[in-house]
Amino acid sequence: MRFICPQKLLMHSIAIVQKSVSTKTTLPILKGIFLEASSNKLRLVGTDLEIGIENIVEADVIEEGSVVVDARLLGEIIRKLPDADVEFSLLDNNQLKIQCENSEFNILSLSATDFPELPVIEEEEAYQIPQELFRNMIKQTVFSTSQDESRPILTGVLMEIEKDILNMVALDGYRLALRKGRIEASYNYKVVIPAKTLNEVSRIMNLDEEEPIHIIITENHTLFTIGNTRLISRLLEGEFINYKQILPKEHKSRVKISTRNLLNSIERASLLAKEGKNNLVKFIVKDEIMTITSNSELGKVHEEIPITLEGADLEIAFNSKYFIDALKVIDDEEVYLDFTTNISPGILKPVSNDNYVYLVLPVRVASN
Amino acid sequence: MRFICPQKLLMHSIAIVQKSVSTKTTLPILKGIFLEASSNKLRLVGTDLEIGIENIVEADVIEEGSVVVDARLLGEIIRKLPDADVEFSLLDNNQLKIQCENSEFNILSLSATDFPELPVIEEEEAYQIPQELFRNMIKQTVFSTSQDESRPILTGVLMEIEKDILNMVALDGYRLALRKGRIEASYNYKVVIPAKTLNEVSRIMNLDEEEPIHIIITENHTLFTIGNTRLISRLLEGEFINYKQILPKEHKSRVKISTRNLLNSIERASLLAKEGKNNLVKFIVKDEIMTITSNSELGKVHEEIPITLEGADLEIAFNSKYFIDALKVIDDEEVYLDFTTNISPGILKPVSNDNYVYLVLPVRVASN
Repeated sequence: MRFICPQKLLMHSIAIVQKSVSTKTTLPILKGIFLEASSNKLRLVGTDLEIGIENIVEADVIEEGSVVVDARLLGEIIRKLPDADVEFSLLDNNQLKIQCENSEFNILSLSATDFPELPVIEEEEAYQIPQELFRNMIKQTVFSTSQDESRPILTGVLMEIEKDILNMVALDGYRLALRKGRIEASYNYKVVIPAKTLNEVSRIMNLDEEEPIHIIITENHTLFTIGNTRLISRLLEGEFINYKQILPKEHKSRVKISTRNLLNSIERASLLAKEGKNNLVKFIVKDEIMTITSNSELGKVHEEIPITLEGADLEIAFNSKYFIDALKVIDDEEVYLDFTTNISPGILKPVSNDNYVYLVLPVRVASN
Repeated sequence: MRFICPQKLLMHSIAIVQKSVSTKTTLPILKGIFLEASSNKLRLVGTDLEIGIENIVEADVIEEGSVVVDARLLGEIIRKLPDADVEFSLLDNNQLKIQCENSEFNILSLSATDFPELPVIEEEEAYQIPQELFRNMIKQTVFSTSQDESRPILTGVLMEIEKDILNMVALDGYRLALRKGRIEASYNYKVVIPAKTLNEVSRIMNLDEEEPIHIIITENHTLFTIGNTRLISRLLEGEFINYKQILPKEHKSRVKISTRNLLNSIERASLLAKEGKNNLVKFIVKDEIMTITSNSELGKVHEEIPITLEGADLEIAFNSKYFIDALKVIDDEEVYLDFTTNISPGILKPVSNDNYVYLVLPVRVASN
């Protein structure tokens, strides 16, 4: 194997695939990046057996072949090389020579035949989605997935296509995030994608490029194609909760409020809400003011925000973290807060569109 | 106590003094910031008993007084408040009320009488030094101090005034950094200042301001005044090593080399120099080329850099870390490397001026 490739291209490509490389594995081959040179293309692959990422760059291939190199070492070497052409040559005894200007590295490589190839994905049901829309849909849902591995299905995000609407849903038992997006598709399906996979897809996206993401779903896998990069992930097995029956159909109080003011006030209130681990803050909705209070042994805080209220006054308490998480990913200037009673879920949704619904369970507190 | 001060000013002032506040202490008062309002000034003080930092901001003082507030909590509250006037009022029972627009905090404060006041510094021997020069002198020396607390004197930097020259010297038993700067002073002295103090002084400096730093030395303390900020630190006790006798007077080989090329090559070579913890790299100086090599079980690297050599050829080995540290803080384009034998110290100095000398002990290696 022998090829030449510019340092900048290599560095970029390694950074993309390196994220899928296992760091904790005891199998040395899984700590490596697979490099395959053929017909003026260099293909780089990394995998932890759950997620695999492949990136293709143009290269001047003098002799075809493939090799596996420790990902961390390769990344460090390429990053430190000057902005110039880099030549790779596979020598005897698995020695890989890397030359660039006046630098020459000789490092041990592993045999490419031991590298687990990515699963072959037959093109079945496919659709496309603009990068910016998909990144936004991931951002508004993925944080609501559960961290608790004892219910694996909740560590993923439901992707549900119904006609030309994609619903992405995440819930962890305390809150639920639902983001709707319009896509072009001609069939219905439901799969649950690990949160980690979606975070990687989001990281790989290059918003400078107009090209949409191409998504293929098979029975056990999903394949995301973004330009020269393909990411293949396992799907989570099991039935996702019927989230539609959780969403309340009506409310008794509707508060219209500035997203920024609400976020800032809750963040300040939560500075003193460290009692237990509840991050407890209380909302008092009355006439044209929402008061937010919290207290602990350190002291207390009292915040007032002007609102427009339709319906009944209300006192209700929440874990501030759940509101802060969602308010940070809402770009709209104003939100609605819909409440029914102080023991039923609160709903947060943007005023300017109906593509996002966020539900939070309240915390029951003794009235004082 | 009651005063009003803009949020931005408070936030900036708290950020300055907060760094001297103990985080590990068991004494609650030392986790606090002392606030003193008098004659339209607010004075903030933090101390860990080794270093104390005081900052003064303008404030609208309605009622004079003083109080101590937990530094972390105060910092978080002020940072989260809007960019507007903040009013502080000390109420009964040590309750401190902090109001800003529609936010009101009531937090517990501590009595100011328990706060350890900063030592009073009589103006004795004082001098001034431009901020940029002093920051550069700190940057070029402080990294060479020892981390080993068993020889406390080496954890500090020697500041030695001889006529109108300030010498700053740090050494840790493996390398020595000497930076000379020209100042206006009319006396000689030597003190050893803790590295931590100099790092704090460097952090506080505001290079936008033309004003020089004012430095006062007493028997046990040093006081740095930078604009509205005063930093008082203990000095280290004991005799500093007679560094002048360590510096070699002559050399047999002088290499002239690009600072950037040398740094880049050593950084690459050190990627494979993890054998033991020596970070061992070998320099081979011959004719117009310096070759840098290293190897480990991972592989080997070979770097070549064009040089101008005066004197004899040489092979010598070093811990790469010691060279990297120094090359990173040298702004000059070219440096000299002066060598005598491969078991005597190597000297690094800029070509364009003689204000910096850096000495490194070589590592003895079996010839191969």
